[in-house]
Amino acid sequence: MRRYRFADIAVLTTALALLACVSFSVALMLKYGAGFLTQLSVKSVHPSPSQSWQQVVAEKLQRDNDKIPVDWRLDSNVIVRAKSSKRLTGDFIESLLDSHSLAITSLDVPDLVASMENGTLTAVEVVTAFCKRAAFAHQLSKLLLEIGFDIALTRARELDAHFATYKKLVGPLHGIPLTMKDQFHIKGLETSMAYVSWIGTFEGKKGIGKEKHVESELVRELYSLGAVPIGKAPETNNNILGYTLNPHNQNLSSGGSSGGEGAMQALGGSAFGIATDIGGSISMPAAYQGVYSIKPSAGRLSFRDVANTGRGQEVMPTVAGIMAHSVASLRLVFKSLLSTEPWARDPYTQPIPWRSENECQNDNQSDRKPTFGFMPNDGIVVPHPPIARALEIVRQALTNADFEVCEIIVRELLLHADIYLLDWVPPSNNETSEIHGPIARGDGCPDVWEAIQQSGEPIVPEIENVFPGGKRRPPISLPEYEQVVLKMKDYRWKYNDYWQSSAGKTSSGRPVDVVIAPVGPHTAIPPGKFIHSSYTSALNVLDFCNVVIPITFADKNQDIVDPNFQPFTDKDRRNMALYDPELFDGTPAAIQVFGRRLDEERVLSVAQIVVDAVEAWNRKHHQQ
Amino acid sequence: MRRYRFADIAVLTTALALLACVSFSVALMLKYGAGFLTQLSVKSVHPSPSQSWQQVVAEKLQRDNDKIPVDWRLDSNVIVRAKSSKRLTGDFIESLLDSHSLAITSLDVPDLVASMENGTLTAVEVVTAFCKRAAFAHQLSKLLLEIGFDIALTRARELDAHFATYKKLVGPLHGIPLTMKDQFHIKGLETSMAYVSWIGTFEGKKGIGKEKHVESELVRELYSLGAVPIGKAPETNNNILGYTLNPHNQNLSSGGSSGGEGAMQALGGSAFGIATDIGGSISMPAAYQGVYSIKPSAGRLSFRDVANTGRGQEVMPTVAGIMAHSVASLRLVFKSLLSTEPWARDPYTQPIPWRSENECQNDNQSDRKPTFGFMPNDGIVVPHPPIARALEIVRQALTNADFEVCEIIVRELLLHADIYLLDWVPPSNNETSEIHGPIARGDGCPDVWEAIQQSGEPIVPEIENVFPGGKRRPPISLPEYEQVVLKMKDYRWKYNDYWQSSAGKTSSGRPVDVVIAPVGPHTAIPPGKFIHSSYTSALNVLDFCNVVIPITFADKNQDIVDPNFQPFTDKDRRNMALYDPELFDGTPAAIQVFGRRLDEERVLSVAQIVVDAVEAWNRKHHQQ
Repeated sequence: MRRYRFADIAVLTTALALLACVSFSVALMLKYGAGFLTQLSVKSVHPSPSQSWQQVVAEKLQRDNDKIPVDWRLDSNVIVRAKSSKRLTGDFIESLLDSHSLAITSLDVPDLVASMENGTLTAVEVVTAFCKRAAFAHQLSKLLLEIGFDIALTRARELDAHFATYKKLVGPLHGIPLTMKDQFHIKGLETSMAYVSWIGTFEGKKGIGKEKHVESELVRELYSLGAVPIGKAPETNNNILGYTLNPHNQNLSSGGSSGGEGAMQALGGSAFGIATDIGGSISMPAAYQGVYSIKPSAGRLSFRDVANTGRGQEVMPTVAGIMAHSVASLRLVFKSLLSTEPWARDPYTQPIPWRSENECQNDNQSDRKPTFGFMPNDGIVVPHPPIARALEIVRQALTNADFEVCEIIVRELLLHADIYLLDWVPPSNNETSEIHGPIARGDGCPDVWEAIQQSGEPIVPEIENVFPGGKRRPPISLPEYEQVVLKMKDYRWKYNDYWQSSAGKTSSGRPVDVVIAPVGPHTAIPPGKFIHSSYTSALNVLDFCNVVIPITFADKNQDIVDPNFQPFTDKDRRNMALYDPELFDGTPAAIQVFGRRLDEERVLSVAQIVVDAVEAWNRKHHQQ
Repeated sequence: MRRYRFADIAVLTTALALLACVSFSVALMLKYGAGFLTQLSVKSVHPSPSQSWQQVVAEKLQRDNDKIPVDWRLDSNVIVRAKSSKRLTGDFIESLLDSHSLAITSLDVPDLVASMENGTLTAVEVVTAFCKRAAFAHQLSKLLLEIGFDIALTRARELDAHFATYKKLVGPLHGIPLTMKDQFHIKGLETSMAYVSWIGTFEGKKGIGKEKHVESELVRELYSLGAVPIGKAPETNNNILGYTLNPHNQNLSSGGSSGGEGAMQALGGSAFGIATDIGGSISMPAAYQGVYSIKPSAGRLSFRDVANTGRGQEVMPTVAGIMAHSVASLRLVFKSLLSTEPWARDPYTQPIPWRSENECQNDNQSDRKPTFGFMPNDGIVVPHPPIARALEIVRQALTNADFEVCEIIVRELLLHADIYLLDWVPPSNNETSEIHGPIARGDGCPDVWEAIQQSGEPIVPEIENVFPGGKRRPPISLPEYEQVVLKMKDYRWKYNDYWQSSAGKTSSGRPVDVVIAPVGPHTAIPPGKFIHSSYTSALNVLDFCNVVIPITFADKNQDIVDPNFQPFTDKDRRNMALYDPELFDGTPAAIQVFGRRLDEERVLSVAQIVVDAVEAWNRKHHQQ
């Protein structure tokens, strides 16, 4: 059994030399594969002569920790015990909480809102309980780059005063505490994106009067809806807080790049989280940590006034999405955000309100009963047994519930391509890797380079490929880049044609509504072992939307590699060789429901139908 | 008075050496200003040793002309008379038509549909009448790169057969003849974009089996709606048909780059036209030629499977739009196209159906009564007297009709900036010129270069700046390009904030619905005199939508330059110096109504309100 030893924070922040770069770690993983996420064998490529970056980090950590109320500071014994524990979720963190805080933080968003609306709970109670739990989560797992408990409680008091005066809530998210990836600007808090050089600045610029004064459009919307930001979570790797491990299984990674937000959700430190995604940075950490998530298509949620290295790349932009504890919560937050009409304030947001008419219904009499595409693998890398079983649970649950499932069995298609019409074979995810990389980082990542260089924080050996010889890689030329964009357009059209062609396979004569697929070819894996991300990055290339649904947990007794397993590819072989029933036992196993561009209402409605079907199937299965 | 002499087609096609490049001519005009459009003093930079391109052109013209039925061939006397006539619209072309054809081609789209629906007219009658008029227009003004009368009549017979059998129309555009810019693929016709090297190929590729077999998505939609393409129009300048002059006043340009389509509409050769725009290529020719047009925001109409040099440029893409003889026609065509749900087949099209709820209403009791921004000039180049008068007619008509007009008087703002709050000053069009050029052609236009080089067709001296020394200009770097994209994003946000801030100036407390503005600082002008396009190119940078409305005609007796005119800029001075009451007399003077991104329903509805108000005002004014 492989297991990691965990150093304390001080050692981590000096010893770990991992690049802080939102959404970028995934891009790097895509290209450089195994090893990028590893926290082992890290050596400093550019040792800073003055060592001043460590001092800057230490001071930031001190400021951060000072914001934790004394009553909420965990005993050092607890922290030591946490380090040697495999699992921090469930009993571990819950046993630290008083019963009132536990009860509150166990409620989901709609229930919390209802409790505040009927006066059972106040916003101050709700915010206090979540801040406390978030403080614990942070001390156990290093999950907050910025702590905003004081700001949050001030806002909670305002909300309670409003409710006392007007007897109604401020908005549909009244009093709901949330955390956000440290890429969004919240007044009163710093935004560093975990770049050491950004500490004490506004996006790397010092003394321009914007520090802690700017508010991202999405933050303004959340405040207007009554929601209460309580802190900001890091991406998975950074030189400030270190590597974010998976709180379900600390031998494994939290996934990138929104690993911190995913871990915060897994530990229940906020009612929902806002993260960002350009290649699976929301979906993967959600899946690895048993959390629900939605990654919308570009322009559905505002990305205005968000810190973003590489934001001049607009053909496949980074998007904001949501992580939460249920589909109902995702839906409420998403729908509430749209109700503010973000397009009036951000012309990069699509002028598309919530469209109830696009929601599917589980009703045999309705023509809105969904039809499913089912994609057990991508023909390149087959998922590990726990994911295959999660998919099978969903397939059986849907079949049991009398849904039409249109199986897109890629393996079969590839092995017996001659018996299928060519145009029934879906465009391969293989094509997307030639598109995603050059678009995401064909510019040589000058912003990332600059942000790293300015502080002297070290570069890990794993990304020497990106900055070879400690230098920026020259950008591809603009005409080359445009050729890649053409490839992307052709791929989107081709994929769309394939989707449309499914109309010929369904009894309704309509194309499938959504596709059920793996989020990746494995559950959470050890840091540095990641080799295949195109299950999610293809969705960014396509600008499709998805919802991640946790289905079950890896079970060493049930989840065994088929002795007759024949790999499609060398990558497939290497991935399956990673599977270790003992190591992965108990780790969340999720699936994704993905839909076409800007079809979030459909995907959210179908995700709820899937959850209901799986619950019904589990009940039935359990009874038998 | 300046006046041009016009050579015959044969001389034109050999002597005129003007670049054929859809939407590109405008981009060039932006940068290289005066002289680009000139047809005078053209010399060949790369004389082709074999002279074969002229032979290729001559053969294409012959094939094209052979498609004109003998009965529709104009007498050479007529063609000679046309060349020496100032005006070809109105009496000139109408006197050539039989009364039945004249009556039919005088009907607008909704009336034509109604006549076919009630059986008064057949599709064959309608298509025949328009083909005949288009054939005349072509012979007078060289307006068809491809003639599809035969294909159109075959389709018309099918439509009539369908109507005879089912007693109902095929769709809302049943039997409506249209022309299209030669950038759209129509089965059975060639697409050359007027590149000589593309003749006999598919987008420059020979023998790949796609020649004349591909159909653009928009063409498929038009066919499904019952519309009947009859031919394809050139952009303003090309080595195949020569320079397209303005049929209202042949001393003047038709405007670029969809000048051919605009001239076809001005001469009534089709009921509507489809053109393309990246910097004013629809709006300017429409305005210069007294035609109505809509340029939607990107993604409202499909651009799939359209020939397009530089189509890897996606941050400010070329868009398809419509030219027609009334707002009612624009609305019917636009709404009909949306009814086909193009987003199902083209994921680059926004999934936004026609939204009646966004249409404004001229009703004092309604909160949908529109509020207008009024922008008489952009503070850089003031419009010539005929345009200023057209704007004044609209302002008075709207004031007379009791609409709220919020005047954005840039001149005043600039002269008295100290008495206004800074944030009330609209972001200047000046900023857009630093954005539009690098985005539209920062890549050095390798596709254009290749298309020109392959045939040996000559490059005019005016574009030596684009291809200096007869070579491609090196592209800007990808990081530089991304910095321009950032500028564009900031400009869009800033402009949007300004728009939102107008809510503080209206009685409703809502921002203005649309802005009334010049289409450019002049009516049609002599070829080569163009110096300022940011009235329209700003809309492309912003991805705004607009409708062009012809208001009046230049009148040498009324339209006099104010003797106290003080230019804002040197460009302003040079533009005003161009104004010649005698030369411009009788030329159409138009305005534009522009709206925010993807707000076409609002803009179309307000455009109709403006037309109604101006008609009412004209009636009242006339009675007094």
